Amino acid sequence: MSTTGEGQTLIQRLAERVRAFGPAHMTAEAAVVARTGIIDALGVALAGSVEACTTNLLRTPGIAEAPGQCTLFGTSRKTSALDAAFVNGTASHALDYDDFSQPMGGHQSVPLVAPLMAVAEERGLSGAQLIQSYTVGIETEIRLARAVNFHHYDKGWHPTATLGVFGAAAAVGHMIGLDEAKLAVALGIAASFASGVKANFGTMVKPLHVGQCARNGLLAALLAEAGYDSNPAALEHEQGFLNAFNGPGNYAAELMFENWANPLEVTSPTMGLKQFPCCGSTHPAISMMLALRQEEGVAAPDVERIEIMPHMRRLPHTDNPDPRTPLAAKFSVQYAVARALLDGAVRLKHFEGDAHLDPAVREIMARTTARPHPDMASDSAEQFGAEVRVTLRDGRVLARRVDGLIGRGGTNPMSSEELWEKFQDCGRRALPKQDLLPLFELLESLDKVDDIRKVARMLTKRTPPGAAMPRPATAAPMSVRGNTLQETSWIP
Amino acid sequence: MSTTGEGQTLIQRLAERVRAFGPAHMTAEAAVVARTGIIDALGVALAGSVEACTTNLLRTPGIAEAPGQCTLFGTSRKTSALDAAFVNGTASHALDYDDFSQPMGGHQSVPLVAPLMAVAEERGLSGAQLIQSYTVGIETEIRLARAVNFHHYDKGWHPTATLGVFGAAAAVGHMIGLDEAKLAVALGIAASFASGVKANFGTMVKPLHVGQCARNGLLAALLAEAGYDSNPAALEHEQGFLNAFNGPGNYAAELMFENWANPLEVTSPTMGLKQFPCCGSTHPAISMMLALRQEEGVAAPDVERIEIMPHMRRLPHTDNPDPRTPLAAKFSVQYAVARALLDGAVRLKHFEGDAHLDPAVREIMARTTARPHPDMASDSAEQFGAEVRVTLRDGRVLARRVDGLIGRGGTNPMSSEELWEKFQDCGRRALPKQDLLPLFELLESLDKVDDIRKVARMLTKRTPPGAAMPRPATAAPMSVRGNTLQETSWIP
Repeated sequence: MSTTGEGQTLIQRLAERVRAFGPAHMTAEAAVVARTGIIDALGVALAGSVEACTTNLLRTPGIAEAPGQCTLFGTSRKTSALDAAFVNGTASHALDYDDFSQPMGGHQSVPLVAPLMAVAEERGLSGAQLIQSYTVGIETEIRLARAVNFHHYDKGWHPTATLGVFGAAAAVGHMIGLDEAKLAVALGIAASFASGVKANFGTMVKPLHVGQCARNGLLAALLAEAGYDSNPAALEHEQGFLNAFNGPGNYAAELMFENWANPLEVTSPTMGLKQFPCCGSTHPAISMMLALRQEEGVAAPDVERIEIMPHMRRLPHTDNPDPRTPLAAKFSVQYAVARALLDGAVRLKHFEGDAHLDPAVREIMARTTARPHPDMASDSAEQFGAEVRVTLRDGRVLARRVDGLIGRGGTNPMSSEELWEKFQDCGRRALPKQDLLPLFELLESLDKVDDIRKVARMLTKRTPPGAAMPRPATAAPMSVRGNTLQETSWIP
Repeated sequence: MSTTGEGQTLIQRLAERVRAFGPAHMTAEAAVVARTGIIDALGVALAGSVEACTTNLLRTPGIAEAPGQCTLFGTSRKTSALDAAFVNGTASHALDYDDFSQPMGGHQSVPLVAPLMAVAEERGLSGAQLIQSYTVGIETEIRLARAVNFHHYDKGWHPTATLGVFGAAAAVGHMIGLDEAKLAVALGIAASFASGVKANFGTMVKPLHVGQCARNGLLAALLAEAGYDSNPAALEHEQGFLNAFNGPGNYAAELMFENWANPLEVTSPTMGLKQFPCCGSTHPAISMMLALRQEEGVAAPDVERIEIMPHMRRLPHTDNPDPRTPLAAKFSVQYAVARALLDGAVRLKHFEGDAHLDPAVREIMARTTARPHPDMASDSAEQFGAEVRVTLRDGRVLARRVDGLIGRGGTNPMSSEELWEKFQDCGRRALPKQDLLPLFELLESLDKVDDIRKVARMLTKRTPPGAAMPRPATAAPMSVRGNTLQETSWIP
């Protein structure tokens, strides 16, 4: 493999690396993280399948009406790979509960999982193939992110979409076996498909960005396969992606290739799963309260007072002692921590209906305060920390502190039990409860699944023909119109 | 109607104007120009329907496979409105032979005609409705262009696509009767769909941009109809369309509303049809040679010498005395003018196969020279001029000169005969010759057509079921990889 790229365009160098990617590049750790990312994305897609941003697509004329082999997760419908990628991609970001990557400034799995699942289902490919193509898709989008962020992010682009489309094109191109020249065509087309502005955060268009980039990345690969051409210099061309989106001088293209796949981006500690369905800035404090409960046996009736002290950058948008809506509750660290104490878990149902007004949780919140941690510096490298201090009625004071908890994953993985807890909480919004454990267990051995259709079959709702579509649930979206709380919250 | 927009976002002000647009805003001139633009776009779409950029779409899994009522022009296939907009939109720009607008820095009709035809066919709407919705689509995209160009164009965006998506959303939203709030939703979604970089000029991706923006503008309107939301501040938001695409300070938003629809953009003299299927910079000289032939009776055997003197900005990319490919012939003013003398017309077939090597035309080219016109200043307001001077064998010298001929249209319309000549030259690539005149005559009374299905039926190829797809033709594309000749050529 050429390492210097002499005589090659950036896209050709990317295509060469994507094409060369194979089992030899995978580590055992990478395979586990990739499998976990895929399981998590499928779980949140099931939860998002009943959200209005998804169900509205299914009543739009021409969407998901093409015949095809590809399952719309959590429904009994099948359609083309393109439409399945569009609908499932949108569903997987509907609740903003999917994993994220700090260097990407966005959500890395959702642009990839929906199109890869659709193609694997259509072509009868294996779980091991899915894991590999996912891994090279992650590598592509995050290496590109390292070249363009955070200027790219700060200008208003939504990297999940504008970079995810390249990841999806690379991942699908890898999966369907495009040669280097055709991979380059697909990536060149992706440069013209990239879109999505953050002004639409807080609306249904944010998850729609993911559906679009998932569909468009897949489309780019399919067009390359069908005989399209594109400009292999579409990244560095003076009127190409880098100059149009970032502007001259505002990117470092060589970072795409520095230590490519060594180590794999998928194993980076800057990638994290969201364990709880609320703002990521509340997660360190929730985890500390759960630890106090589990390890010290703290129970709600024993608690006199709770003091929450997150890193100062986590607090301004989550200091909300009296949330009045489910959405506001997602941005209330007081509510989230009180819930963790009361229920020993923070789940989707806690942000639906009137759960945030529950007298039992309000009673705890009345004895809860939040302030910035005095010892966590604003310029620290670790900006995802929190300490939770509990004063018991018997006078004892118990505390737990964590300094760097950017979601879960990497060096701080979720246990199989924690992953299952999230998966079943998500999955039960779309599928019968008894169907979830067999599905989860199959996914836990995804690398041994010889045909993804076995997985897809279990993501299907076995509804009698003619039964009504599921109605949208009432959970609030994660974000607020004109605001970018949950994504900016984890950008240093 | 609010004129100042106090308390309204830019999108809300646009939506208000689009919603209010009706027969009272149409002038007789506007109706004629709009009808001509629609006829021209349908003609070039027929010609483009057999190009590889279009036929490749039809062999891509999932494209045009959805059931539906909407005709793929020049074929016997029908599909959903979304897919028809995608395929027909791509076809209509395949040859770069469609009309253009100087302030838009792009092609104004093609983003609109494919989606409007699809929706009108699906819903059985009238020709008058089509003309009105087309006119408000033109108004929307070109007013937006006045706010963002030419910074937008120069940065590398392809305005046909990045602005056309707003035009398509507005036009379709108008056609399907969205209220102001839903029109605003559609325009807000369009801000997140806008895409297309000029690095891909000279490849199949350039016409693909048009298919994408046509489909996406339509999709934005359909999603608004289905219950989507979006941010009504998605244009001026600090992370919205204007700041992400142009950057702060590089646009003048108020120009969107200055003299809105008064006069209508569609009647602007800066909009032009392409009468000949080659680089627009060769058109003034071709027209002058045709005038000499028609008005002075000049014939090839009588000609001793031809001197072509275009405005200096038209020459660098068209001074090509020995074109070796059909594509190069499209950028040879010597070839184009010699063809005009020899054949009395410049047609698609002259840029196919070995037509550029024809000994008869080569014999004339050997006696043809080109140089910049000495009296046409580089800083003149008129940069689309040419003089053609012919020395006859009998010693007489005849000349014709024009100073401002930015395509045809506005104050310099094509006659019905000229329009028909282009239409049939285009149409015969896809449809039987005898079907074209009845279609053209129906389109000439488009304002009286009560149901667009009558037009659509005539755009359909009556192929026996099971017959093979038409094979791609061999005509060269208009542009060259990594180059932007034909669009930059008419930007002052």
